[in-house]
Amino acid sequence: MSYDRLTPDNAAVLFVDHQTGLSNGIQDQSLPEYINSVTALAKLTKTFKLPAVITTSAADGPNGPILPVITNLLPDAQIVHRPGEINAWHNEAFVAAVAKTGRKKLIVAGVSTEVCVAFVALSAAAAGYDVYAVIDASGTWNKLVQEVAVARMAQAGVKPITWVAVGAELLGDWRTPYAQEHGQLMADHLPFYGNLVGSFLAAKQG
Amino acid sequence: MSYDRLTPDNAAVLFVDHQTGLSNGIQDQSLPEYINSVTALAKLTKTFKLPAVITTSAADGPNGPILPVITNLLPDAQIVHRPGEINAWHNEAFVAAVAKTGRKKLIVAGVSTEVCVAFVALSAAAAGYDVYAVIDASGTWNKLVQEVAVARMAQAGVKPITWVAVGAELLGDWRTPYAQEHGQLMADHLPFYGNLVGSFLAAKQG
Amino acid sequence: MSYDRLTPDNAAVLFVDHQTGLSNGIQDQSLPEYINSVTALAKLTKTFKLPAVITTSAADGPNGPILPVITNLLPDAQIVHRPGEINAWHNEAFVAAVAKTGRKKLIVAGVSTEVCVAFVALSAAAAGYDVYAVIDASGTWNKLVQEVAVARMAQAGVKPITWVAVGAELLGDWRTPYAQEHGQLMADHLPFYGNLVGSFLAAKQG
Amino acid sequence: MSYDRLTPDNAAVLFVDHQTGLSNGIQDQSLPEYINSVTALAKLTKTFKLPAVITTSAADGPNGPILPVITNLLPDAQIVHRPGEINAWHNEAFVAAVAKTGRKKLIVAGVSTEVCVAFVALSAAAAGYDVYAVIDASGTWNKLVQEVAVARMAQAGVKPITWVAVGAELLGDWRTPYAQEHGQLMADHLPFYGNLVGSFLAAKQG
Amino acid sequence: MSYDRLTPDNAAVLFVDHQTGLSNGIQDQSLPEYINSVTALAKLTKTFKLPAVITTSAADGPNGPILPVITNLLPDAQIVHRPGEINAWHNEAFVAAVAKTGRKKLIVAGVSTEVCVAFVALSAAAAGYDVYAVIDASGTWNKLVQEVAVARMAQAGVKPITWVAVGAELLGDWRTPYAQEHGQLMADHLPFYGNLVGSFLAAKQG
Amino acid sequence: MSYDRLTPDNAAVLFVDHQTGLSNGIQDQSLPEYINSVTALAKLTKTFKLPAVITTSAADGPNGPILPVITNLLPDAQIVHRPGEINAWHNEAFVAAVAKTGRKKLIVAGVSTEVCVAFVALSAAAAGYDVYAVIDASGTWNKLVQEVAVARMAQAGVKPITWVAVGAELLGDWRTPYAQEHGQLMADHLPFYGNLVGSFLAAKQG
Amino acid sequence: MSYDRLTPDNAAVLFVDHQTGLSNGIQDQSLPEYINSVTALAKLTKTFKLPAVITTSAADGPNGPILPVITNLLPDAQIVHRPGEINAWHNEAFVAAVAKTGRKKLIVAGVSTEVCVAFVALSAAAAGYDVYAVIDASGTWNKLVQEVAVARMAQAGVKPITWVAVGAELLGDWRTPYAQEHGQLMADHLPFYGNLVGSFLAAKQG
Amino acid sequence: MSYDRLTPDNAAVLFVDHQTGLSNGIQDQSLPEYINSVTALAKLTKTFKLPAVITTSAADGPNGPILPVITNLLPDAQIVHRPGEINAWHNEAFVAAVAKTGRKKLIVAGVSTEVCVAFVALSAAAAGYDVYAVIDASGTWNKLVQEVAVARMAQAGVKPITWVAVGAELLGDWRTPYAQEHGQLMADHLPFYGNLVGSFLAAKQG
Repeated sequence: MSYDRLTPDNAAVLFVDHQTGLSNGIQDQSLPEYINSVTALAKLTKTFKLPAVITTSAADGPNGPILPVITNLLPDAQIVHRPGEINAWHNEAFVAAVAKTGRKKLIVAGVSTEVCVAFVALSAAAAGYDVYAVIDASGTWNKLVQEVAVARMAQAGVKPITWVAVGAELLGDWRTPYAQEHGQLMADHLPFYGNLVGSFLAAKQG
Repeated sequence: MSYDRLTPDNAAVLFVDHQTGLSNGIQDQSLPEYINSVTALAKLTKTFKLPAVITTSAADGPNGPILPVITNLLPDAQIVHRPGEINAWHNEAFVAAVAKTGRKKLIVAGVSTEVCVAFVALSAAAAGYDVYAVIDASGTWNKLVQEVAVARMAQAGVKPITWVAVGAELLGDWRTPYAQEHGQLMADHLPFYGNLVGSFLAAKQG
Repeated sequence: MSYDRLTPDNAAVLFVDHQTGLSNGIQDQSLPEYINSVTALAKLTKTFKLPAVITTSAADGPNGPILPVITNLLPDAQIVHRPGEINAWHNEAFVAAVAKTGRKKLIVAGVSTEVCVAFVALSAAAAGYDVYAVIDASGTWNKLVQEVAVARMAQAGVKPITWVAVGAELLGDWRTPYAQEHGQLMADHLPFYGNLVGSFLAAKQG
Repeated sequence: MSYDRLTPDNAAVLFVDHQTGLSNGIQDQSLPEYINSVTALAKLTKTFKLPAVITTSAADGPNGPILPVITNLLPDAQIVHRPGEINAWHNEAFVAAVAKTGRKKLIVAGVSTEVCVAFVALSAAAAGYDVYAVIDASGTWNKLVQEVAVARMAQAGVKPITWVAVGAELLGDWRTPYAQEHGQLMADHLPFYGNLVGSFLAAKQG
Repeated sequence: MSYDRLTPDNAAVLFVDHQTGLSNGIQDQSLPEYINSVTALAKLTKTFKLPAVITTSAADGPNGPILPVITNLLPDAQIVHRPGEINAWHNEAFVAAVAKTGRKKLIVAGVSTEVCVAFVALSAAAAGYDVYAVIDASGTWNKLVQEVAVARMAQAGVKPITWVAVGAELLGDWRTPYAQEHGQLMADHLPFYGNLVGSFLAAKQG
Repeated sequence: MSYDRLTPDNAAVLFVDHQTGLSNGIQDQSLPEYINSVTALAKLTKTFKLPAVITTSAADGPNGPILPVITNLLPDAQIVHRPGEINAWHNEAFVAAVAKTGRKKLIVAGVSTEVCVAFVALSAAAAGYDVYAVIDASGTWNKLVQEVAVARMAQAGVKPITWVAVGAELLGDWRTPYAQEHGQLMADHLPFYGNLVGSFLAAKQG
Repeated sequence: MSYDRLTPDNAAVLFVDHQTGLSNGIQDQSLPEYINSVTALAKLTKTFKLPAVITTSAADGPNGPILPVITNLLPDAQIVHRPGEINAWHNEAFVAAVAKTGRKKLIVAGVSTEVCVAFVALSAAAAGYDVYAVIDASGTWNKLVQEVAVARMAQAGVKPITWVAVGAELLGDWRTPYAQEHGQLMADHLPFYGNLVGSFLAAKQG
Repeated sequence: MSYDRLTPDNAAVLFVDHQTGLSNGIQDQSLPEYINSVTALAKLTKTFKLPAVITTSAADGPNGPILPVITNLLPDAQIVHRPGEINAWHNEAFVAAVAKTGRKKLIVAGVSTEVCVAFVALSAAAAGYDVYAVIDASGTWNKLVQEVAVARMAQAGVKPITWVAVGAELLGDWRTPYAQEHGQLMADHLPFYGNLVGSFLAAKQG
């Protein structure tokens, strides 16, 4: 029952199969919301300098290449192209890449939630990691599949979470050096917050 | 598996970041429903003379001041303005204020559900408190975030609840002195109940 | 195709069967939202000093008395208790009361949308009035009934509207004397707007 | 733009293909709601002694027999078993049966809304009848089909309506002899109203 | 992890505050669906001769009398009118009535789900009973409250269930003497099943 | 207000941009439902030997090739590959192909509803055709876009419809030679109907 | 019944009260979707060099400044700050600015749909303009208000539309010089389309 | 907390009461989606040569015969016609058939989710099997029943899952001999994936 937060020092991020083709099968949320959340998670990874591992499934086939927003934001992240394993945890290079991060808390997102995310999450939890599944930076075929995937992962001890909470845990305190960059990220991707800031500054200056 | 109810003697209420700006980001319920539930929770706190701790995050910035309905109803509640900590439990003054209530059961509500509520709830539970998260007197960015937040808190042993149930546990029995004030509260904030009373009195007098 | 707005001088408001019992049958919106909208419409009536006619159906029976919020806000409105007519337009006193207002634009709300509102609206339109049906200050048994009622009224030339639009047409310009009272009304019943004002004033004063 | 209500003297009811098999394809509302609405419409027909025509499509095949609740309530209604025509208006016996009612207002319900109801409604309107399509006493395969069917019929001048409004137009006034039977019908099929009556009588007697 | 089914010999049914007034506050399902499910549960109780305890909260006030369908179907059930206790388990007569049934499995339904049902369910579970909460034969103010109530009860080991599953566990086998009466119950309250039977018999006889 | 049905002799079908890429942007219905409806419409075209015109937009680019199910079922349909025109009606070959069908009733479906379908529908209606837009054999980016597209087309006199109604108008009577093939089509694509048939035959043979 | 499309030469765009404060009241769609659509409409305006008029309501008060994305994209658009008129059409400078565009087709979007958009749309239509209301680049307080606003505008001849359709009408043909910039816009704001392009290019190059 | 995947060697599939009549009562998803998922699960069973047990409840009565798609795809599966037991686990032949498969992981689907699936799942879990309940290849009367059934099964350790995840666990790696057949299955039943493949191949060949 202990609660220790995600920090820039204890967490790594796993981007699993956020590919252009697979992303077009998502119907558990709107595509603009999905892209917005994925972008926000990638920016959080960059802002907090978290080690990241990106993996793909048959990226030279119909599943398509990685969403460019991820690779553009995280040019140095290790990418593991899996030749066939559906569960990235079955790929030794991926497991090694995760291990090399030295982190024990894993933030996992991907497409689809019930396959690419759930399999990695369940495997990593079984391997002793503390796993967080970012449901809104992931996507799947319909709302029912999402609900079932969350229930299955929660049952196994994987923590369901969403990107704003990930960011809030990582930042921890608005007096840290990360705050300014994080604030901009929030304003850009949680639009009501950007609106708040705009209104506030105008009122101050008005 | 024991069940012991919330009482006026064993519970305190924590209002976490119910600020005007943050409240305008809520989309997991309608704003009239949210304001109605927050007001009801504040009135419950007043009716049952529960110790309350109010906390804010950057209240002099875009997040905005506390909803006036809370401070108007609870003028004597301790307010902890956090200079930067996102998780109120990381603020020593807040933890001390909670401890000073002497209560072991904590009723937590706030904005947003998955950050301000969940972090406090998870931390307080880890610290040994019995924590109730009031989901309808809280709010967040969309229904998915709410669902994920409830799942995460429930997984950790935090009890999800709604304001009517909080009030019913606190009252316990309609023969106590609190009943009249509580009845009025119910009539005002659970509108069907107010309608019932209006119809009943008219029928009796008709 | 001409468009001339509702004004304090050309419109009257008809409250049709907003009774405590009938209101408890509403499921096309939440009760807190319904009560909030009805209250707002009554306040608009008061603010803009619109002539109002209130009517009831069997108010001394199960349908129950008028919602007190209406009669409290509009103590001088004429009330026509119908002895049996379902369509208020079939009641001579009601039609006379409407005629006595001298207004050609009628703002109609009530319970239920497809009966009490639609029948009056269709009859009044047939009688030459320009009729506005306020859908969110009305209510009915489920969303399907609401949709069908709106389609039927729109088909017959009745204008579907909601309370914020009614208020905005009536005010017309924020430089009129009504503006201050109207602003408070908006802040109280469109909660996000109240939050905006609270944040703005705090930022100005901060 | 004239508005003249449905009355016991000017309206007939057409039940189109409310068959046991076809009814099991309905997904635009729940089955308990559908059966409840169909039963209420049949009782309205009986209460107000409206002429009724029942028709079926291949009732000795998979479409199944007429819902027994309809034939039980309306044992004297003429039944036209269509040997093949999908649009009942293409069946001479049906058109003749409708004509024989001598009524110019037709209340139409059936399964499915966009076929059996819409075809009859559009044909009858083209033939000069004033047609009301009872959407909640009808049913179809999903919500989209329902919405499209309502839009198509409304576009052609067919009036979309629901059963409670049909009953309210027919009754017209609670002081007519029909009132008692109609009140019981309402209490039985609009459950909140039955609850209102139960509460009212108890309060009166209490 | 053992699974032993509800049987006519090991289960009792608790009807908690299914009162006419309270029932009119339900918005987590339609009223026709709610009444249908409550009626079905009462019929199951009668069919399987289960001991039943009915309890009310302030039945001579606005909450109103028990739904007549329950008392009509179960005229011999013990009724405990609570003078003030919100949690029926705090009423000694109620607890004694439950104990007197001699059953260790309790099937609980009522209004509202998160108060009247949840409090009894949590208390009874704490007292060692095996508790089933029948969510569709219960009701509450909106879908969110329902979801939170289910989550809270499930967290505490109460089994969430719906009336068809209760009936199926009780019957166990279609070759028992209960089958005929149960089949009629299913046909009447799960309308698609009644339609299936009607179609089947017609096909057989056709 | 005349109503004359679609027949095998008076109607043609236009398939507008049902391409593999575009189809993956659909979120106003599930993809299995969309594919099912498109397939059914293509089969209807084949069954009733309707002239069909298929058109594509940049089929050798990201929009992708025509859904194979369409071309497989309708190998002889004329295909007009548009080099750039978004509105197919701006393409002379397309308009000529439509004219060559000699039909005055046009059944239009495509992706997306508000662009490819609506533009053709509005243009064809302006050119004097009687246009039917098949909403469930079309698709678009979200439910709001669908609703707005239907409203716009209905406003302009285009008839909104769904595939089952198209088929029912075309068949007209179950005693025509088309009936057997049409019945199989219905059983395959309106699954509840296939189930009905399966149950019926079993009961007959049982 | 004529249909003539929006073109770069016949249309102007009106941005009505897209202010930071007002935008935070939107609940008829998610904020990421709203911002995405508004941005897309502003980019369309820029791409097709459409004359634009931006107007605000009390922009130095709680309503807040214009969304920066609009003014950044359209630095040369005329801005009319209204001192008090709710309906921008009541402001002479605004009407003059619209007239000065010389365009007879007006594309209107704003916050809120039923006030700021509908009033301008109805007034402009009454003044003889051909008006298109862009529902997804507008926003309002809840889905019901949106539906009612669309019904009211459609009833008055205003054409409901969404941003992708606006863009498609403006582009007209992918062989025009606008195509490249428009394609990028589509890829950026209709994310599935961006994914299509990404997959296509990868497949081509792979 | 270990995670070991479903494999062709450790799993069996149980099809419980997927009968034509029962399937027509499903309202927790659309029928096209349900049939699509059931078909996919049957094809997965065939592709991976999993032992399967099919069982029916009163298949010669109104419940109807097994969906032909299942028996057509799995002609060699053992079928246990239960003479009366509702819970298939109470039928010795069924339990024996399951035992004879020699598998310890059971994939269960059926109609209805909360009865036929849940009872078998709970019983099998109690008997020591590792049970997966395939929610989208199952169906029930409404969404609430589905949610409650998932909650009850998850509480008891049954793993909720959907058919795509089942297939992905079984395949494990796209380099196995099963891949080609599995890919075709995915393309046929997860339509966006079929579209992806179609677009990809066209781009490659284009």
